[in-house]
Amino acid sequence: MNPIDVEQYLADRKIIIDRALDGILPLPDTYPSSIHQAMRYSVLGDGKRFRPIVALAVFEAMRGTDRMIMQAACALELIHAYSLIHDDLPCMDDDDLRRGKPTLHKAFNEAVAVLAGDALSALAFELLAATGRPDIIREVARAIGPQGMVGGQVVDIQSEGRPFVSEELEYIHSHKTGALITVAARVGAMLAEAGSEELTALTCYGEKMGLAFQIIDDVLNIAGKKETMGKNAGTDQEKRKATYPALFGVAQSQREAQRLIAEAEQALDPFGSSASILRALADFVIERAR
Amino acid sequence: MNPIDVEQYLADRKIIIDRALDGILPLPDTYPSSIHQAMRYSVLGDGKRFRPIVALAVFEAMRGTDRMIMQAACALELIHAYSLIHDDLPCMDDDDLRRGKPTLHKAFNEAVAVLAGDALSALAFELLAATGRPDIIREVARAIGPQGMVGGQVVDIQSEGRPFVSEELEYIHSHKTGALITVAARVGAMLAEAGSEELTALTCYGEKMGLAFQIIDDVLNIAGKKETMGKNAGTDQEKRKATYPALFGVAQSQREAQRLIAEAEQALDPFGSSASILRALADFVIERAR
Repeated sequence: MNPIDVEQYLADRKIIIDRALDGILPLPDTYPSSIHQAMRYSVLGDGKRFRPIVALAVFEAMRGTDRMIMQAACALELIHAYSLIHDDLPCMDDDDLRRGKPTLHKAFNEAVAVLAGDALSALAFELLAATGRPDIIREVARAIGPQGMVGGQVVDIQSEGRPFVSEELEYIHSHKTGALITVAARVGAMLAEAGSEELTALTCYGEKMGLAFQIIDDVLNIAGKKETMGKNAGTDQEKRKATYPALFGVAQSQREAQRLIAEAEQALDPFGSSASILRALADFVIERAR
Repeated sequence: MNPIDVEQYLADRKIIIDRALDGILPLPDTYPSSIHQAMRYSVLGDGKRFRPIVALAVFEAMRGTDRMIMQAACALELIHAYSLIHDDLPCMDDDDLRRGKPTLHKAFNEAVAVLAGDALSALAFELLAATGRPDIIREVARAIGPQGMVGGQVVDIQSEGRPFVSEELEYIHSHKTGALITVAARVGAMLAEAGSEELTALTCYGEKMGLAFQIIDDVLNIAGKKETMGKNAGTDQEKRKATYPALFGVAQSQREAQRLIAEAEQALDPFGSSASILRALADFVIERAR
């Protein structure tokens, strides 16, 4: 088997996903134009497309054939974009920079930012409905609801500037970031008609990788450079946010992320070489911080 | 046929819907409790439940039997509640009073308000997924997206304090309020397996009634009393909002609403006496302003 060039894989998939997103998002002059321009501003351009790539990679590894996979994958990116827009608002994280440009409420205004987030969420469910799979729609809705992604953001906001314990931290990570990455793996698996044991293994893969992803994100917030991240560094410390490195330091955080990635890859053992790309993706999560 | 006591019908249905909403919303001490308390604060208590009642009434008139109707009806109310929360935010309409109590961002804070809206939207799609009907999920997602409810709110916000034309006004009404009321009628019809001609007629009914509903709402904002409305009166004039009475005056607005309600009832002609409750509902929309 050829070794996998994960960076090439990521770059190739990003091109395909970006083209699909461009086609899915209403044209910028669609009335009312401000909201459609705002949606395109937030979604298109920079962005790793990690969540749709996880869904695609799992789908490919499971040899899925459902042609709706791209709609479902793009829906996950729209949801991710909507969550970033709302998280960046002044009443939340109050961030000015995202993906290398001003955050949406800075470039437009707060009202448009709230509404663009709402619009992207609605469009995501319209795309998911195109899969014809209510079970998948239910999974995604649960994953981003008050006991999923939104719940994680609530605890994240509330943890700012006060002492926190590692249980809260794990809740924030596994919900705020982990839930959407996990459901990305599940959506890819479900659309590929994975069996129940396969689904369980891929869920474990998504969970562990999602947690590691967020830990590395927090490490990069401390150690990274504004230029490569496209957002301001050091903001978590300023806000005294509940993060892994704040509680355990950078070195132990990296070790913890490595441990989680090893577990994520263990979950792939039953799949043998067909899961090579999924292992490469998991490795990439750690590589980001090197 | 007995004459219909619409107020009794509305009161009865509100009790049933409120009980269902109470069971659907997570308990207030569910972790993280602030978001679940905020969701319950905004949804439970006052509120006419007009959208779920439209869905139920159409479903009943079409003799539907799908037991998922209550989930779908409640999803529409959760979406309505989420849109009110976001519309009331300081960066939008900046309202302090809603349904007779402080708006959510006043009672809690802005971050919780944004997130509670997001959470209610996600929960609504989880409920809709329970119907097992991707066609219905798609309808609702489109109705509340950037070319539906959210689009209407965008134009509404942008129309504040500047001259506007009647086309803009109709766009605001038919999208901001009309889209959700129309889709409520459609969801009731689709779950009752209405035929395509029936669906077209009921869509027309929803559209006309939805427009009339918003015109009357605007009239009440001028002429109504804070005590009966549960929100502050005169706020549209203060903000120089694009409203029907602002453009045409109260008397002509009431005439226009009556004309629309007559058209809504005409659309029900093919249904004969089985649509009596739908006619009574339409009449009630006008009665509110007397």
